[in-house]
Amino acid sequence: MDLHGRSFIGWASGTDGGKTFTAINPATAQPIAPNYISASAAEVERAAQLAAQAFISFSRTSGKERAVFLREIANRLDGIVDELVIRTNQEAGLAEARIRSEAARTAFQMRLFADLIEEGSWVRARLDKGDADRKPAKPDLRSMWRPLGPVVVFGASNFPLAYSVAGGDTASAFAAGNPVIVKAHPAHPGTSELVGAVIIAAARACGMPEGIFSLLFDAGTEVGSALVKHPLVRAVGFTGSQRGGRALMNLAAARPAPIPVFAEMGSTNPVFILPGALAARGEQIAEGLHGSVTLGAGQFCTKPGMVFLPKGKDATNFSQNLSKRIGESASQVMLTPGIQSAYTGMVGARAKQSKVSLAAEGKPSAGEVGVRGVPAMFAVEAADFLDEPDLSEEVFGPTTLLVSYGTREEMLEIARGLQGHLTATLHGTDEDLREYRELVEILEQKAGRLVFNGFPTGVEVGHAIVHGGPYPATSDGQSTSVGSQAIYRFARPVCYQNFPGAALPDELKDANPLGIWRLKDGALTKD
Amino acid sequence: MDLHGRSFIGWASGTDGGKTFTAINPATAQPIAPNYISASAAEVERAAQLAAQAFISFSRTSGKERAVFLREIANRLDGIVDELVIRTNQEAGLAEARIRSEAARTAFQMRLFADLIEEGSWVRARLDKGDADRKPAKPDLRSMWRPLGPVVVFGASNFPLAYSVAGGDTASAFAAGNPVIVKAHPAHPGTSELVGAVIIAAARACGMPEGIFSLLFDAGTEVGSALVKHPLVRAVGFTGSQRGGRALMNLAAARPAPIPVFAEMGSTNPVFILPGALAARGEQIAEGLHGSVTLGAGQFCTKPGMVFLPKGKDATNFSQNLSKRIGESASQVMLTPGIQSAYTGMVGARAKQSKVSLAAEGKPSAGEVGVRGVPAMFAVEAADFLDEPDLSEEVFGPTTLLVSYGTREEMLEIARGLQGHLTATLHGTDEDLREYRELVEILEQKAGRLVFNGFPTGVEVGHAIVHGGPYPATSDGQSTSVGSQAIYRFARPVCYQNFPGAALPDELKDANPLGIWRLKDGALTKD
Repeated sequence: MDLHGRSFIGWASGTDGGKTFTAINPATAQPIAPNYISASAAEVERAAQLAAQAFISFSRTSGKERAVFLREIANRLDGIVDELVIRTNQEAGLAEARIRSEAARTAFQMRLFADLIEEGSWVRARLDKGDADRKPAKPDLRSMWRPLGPVVVFGASNFPLAYSVAGGDTASAFAAGNPVIVKAHPAHPGTSELVGAVIIAAARACGMPEGIFSLLFDAGTEVGSALVKHPLVRAVGFTGSQRGGRALMNLAAARPAPIPVFAEMGSTNPVFILPGALAARGEQIAEGLHGSVTLGAGQFCTKPGMVFLPKGKDATNFSQNLSKRIGESASQVMLTPGIQSAYTGMVGARAKQSKVSLAAEGKPSAGEVGVRGVPAMFAVEAADFLDEPDLSEEVFGPTTLLVSYGTREEMLEIARGLQGHLTATLHGTDEDLREYRELVEILEQKAGRLVFNGFPTGVEVGHAIVHGGPYPATSDGQSTSVGSQAIYRFARPVCYQNFPGAALPDELKDANPLGIWRLKDGALTKD
Repeated sequence: MDLHGRSFIGWASGTDGGKTFTAINPATAQPIAPNYISASAAEVERAAQLAAQAFISFSRTSGKERAVFLREIANRLDGIVDELVIRTNQEAGLAEARIRSEAARTAFQMRLFADLIEEGSWVRARLDKGDADRKPAKPDLRSMWRPLGPVVVFGASNFPLAYSVAGGDTASAFAAGNPVIVKAHPAHPGTSELVGAVIIAAARACGMPEGIFSLLFDAGTEVGSALVKHPLVRAVGFTGSQRGGRALMNLAAARPAPIPVFAEMGSTNPVFILPGALAARGEQIAEGLHGSVTLGAGQFCTKPGMVFLPKGKDATNFSQNLSKRIGESASQVMLTPGIQSAYTGMVGARAKQSKVSLAAEGKPSAGEVGVRGVPAMFAVEAADFLDEPDLSEEVFGPTTLLVSYGTREEMLEIARGLQGHLTATLHGTDEDLREYRELVEILEQKAGRLVFNGFPTGVEVGHAIVHGGPYPATSDGQSTSVGSQAIYRFARPVCYQNFPGAALPDELKDANPLGIWRLKDGALTKD
């Protein structure tokens, strides 16, 4: 497909005149054609108006109809993977295998939500029967979850497919019945355009209304701000930095009518290596940790950025082992010049902190070009860690911090002081787990997902996954951005009192024509 | 029980020294002993610290254990109803029958949540089995909803029992496993103290940890603000005015770590009387509407405050009928001097609006004393209504506004322009409902509950009820503050990856020892 460098405003292309920008190939630090044109204020307005208009009919489509649409997107995505392998590699510096697996995950997510809404029970139908003889008469009440309205999705830099134009936010918003306006991430506009064209084609093939999808480019932040402030927009999905996410939260909270922002803002993902596991499997854990820290140049929001372990010979061996692995690691191409420069700056600043030691640094390749980050490992004592809140902050890139503690109480104090994270990991024997039950109880309050004897990178897409966690990991610790439960971010309960059967949605009719699970007078049934 | 006028800070009583206030009997406009002492900043801090401490053990109690606690509260509430009849009548001007029915509802709510958590399936347990042979290995993932942490509840003026100290917010927060700190509404401190003492006694009788409950009095807004800003507080429940609710939303959104505020802020509850119903049952609807508008002096957040009907003879008859009823209605004792003065001010201002006519006014009783509101009915043409956004605002008290429209399109335009409401009501024949399908579709986007051929006052407590709706009806249109679904406001999903069975909560163990419904690999089962 030829790339045109223009937004999609419903079925139409964006016009000329806006400020332009180009993607940068991080492997060469060179710009990539074509130029992309920022959307105008009028185009933002038009996209919002079209979305609100499309919502009227799209919100009335059945789950089965929307499932067809999501599968059409998935199938068409499968058909452009070879194109993505070229363009996404150029724009994000990702290797072919990663692009293929991320594309497969993106299509899988569409199909997961298609299955969910085709089956239909996700709507949480509840029926409480009335009783005309009661004084006062008890009404017949039936409720189900319905879509919210136009949703704005911000593409993420680090998942140019799975959390971008057709990513998890878009899939779950569509699945619930909401139109989506995507603000493309400026680092991968070509990838965004390719995927956007797929969604437009799928929508037209399925007879969906114009405005169900728009894709807006912008060199700056004006388009994103205008979208979040637009009165017709009902919710926001975002994956990115804490600074960016908080800015959107503040904008949304200051609206005349505030709207929910579901921002996944990354975290430092603490790892606790307990004494038994450290003694028994120190080397194996070091190997796994090294892989998890450097995977994808450490540019995952689940990268383990701080590791807590008890002082002693086992910790020394572990630290030496991990140091050696980091020291032998080559520099890696990062996603964008901005991410690389932030990483290099933060690693440099950390190396200068008096109480932190740079335990190991990877090797810049000779004569290397492009936007690269050098892996680095730091070490600090628990008491100094507690004195320096900055050390808990996420450093996005291939680095981690080993924190050695003297006593169990010192470690528990650290755990109690943690802010919210997407994940918290424990390495332990069964005996460790019994002995450190209190640690598990503390971590449960701090993270959305607790990992045992594993590593937090690699987020399995399914029904039970929680990719969330208390602020600042997310804007809303009561939600998940990955997995089928993510659909509820973009829906709300609506109750019908004493409605005649003919006027009720199928999900709430007496005969249960969709055969879904429903809570009838408090009991789950398919009757 | 003797009233002491002091806060409960865990098991202890508040100290002297704070600014004092007294309740006012609205039937006499006279103060009622004793003086109540505002909690100090140190007491706020102590309540928050105790709540955070109590959360550690309370969050680990089983649903069955918490059910015993909730039932103990319910039973003890049943035991003080005679005392409440006296004190709540003095403080809120409510009649004995209303106080008895509200007390019964309050105890019912506690028992509803007790049943819910005893059964246990509310936790939304999800299990996705792992697959070690897959490349990469698929982890075992299990998730469930867990409590958030200390919850602050603001007592509501208009439900001194059912949405106050032991009301729906407190019941649902306790049910999920959260400690509760109640900021008592200053209009009914004695009622609050009586009910607070019941909760303290029930907590002690059930061996619950100190700090699971505190009750703070305050003459002003300092205590409430300090609680919402306190770093150990995790969520807020509020029922009250839009101004008050929005202030709390803004405070919570501006915290270093924002927290959710679940504010139910009332609404104007539009009623649409469609032509067929107006012709067939105009008189009956007028009678029902009069009852709904004047019930409890119009001091329900579901009071129907605007009524839309097609111009013509039927509308004229309807309007005359309702006018007569309102004109014959006596003034009513209102909850507080502040509410009465706001009501009187807003009714007076509306009567002066050039395009609005005062269609009827009730009768002040001769020689009446106390804090009273006179029922009033206004009328306006649709075009003028559309020009005056103020006319859509809630007027809390026994008044409503009739809006007559000329064309179907004019009516639909009004519907499209509505802001969020708790309820929207339709009166129609089956034919009306078919013909005005578009109106139903619009209203579904505007309200949490759609009522057919009924009246919105009277909120049935059960599983299917939704007492919510888009902003400004609530702060969070994705929640309900009434019914069993309200528990999810105070919980969040937590996922366990590859945890050994012994370390998992019972809800997630292989054998399903609690026998609850779980989503296993996407299918609901009790296996």
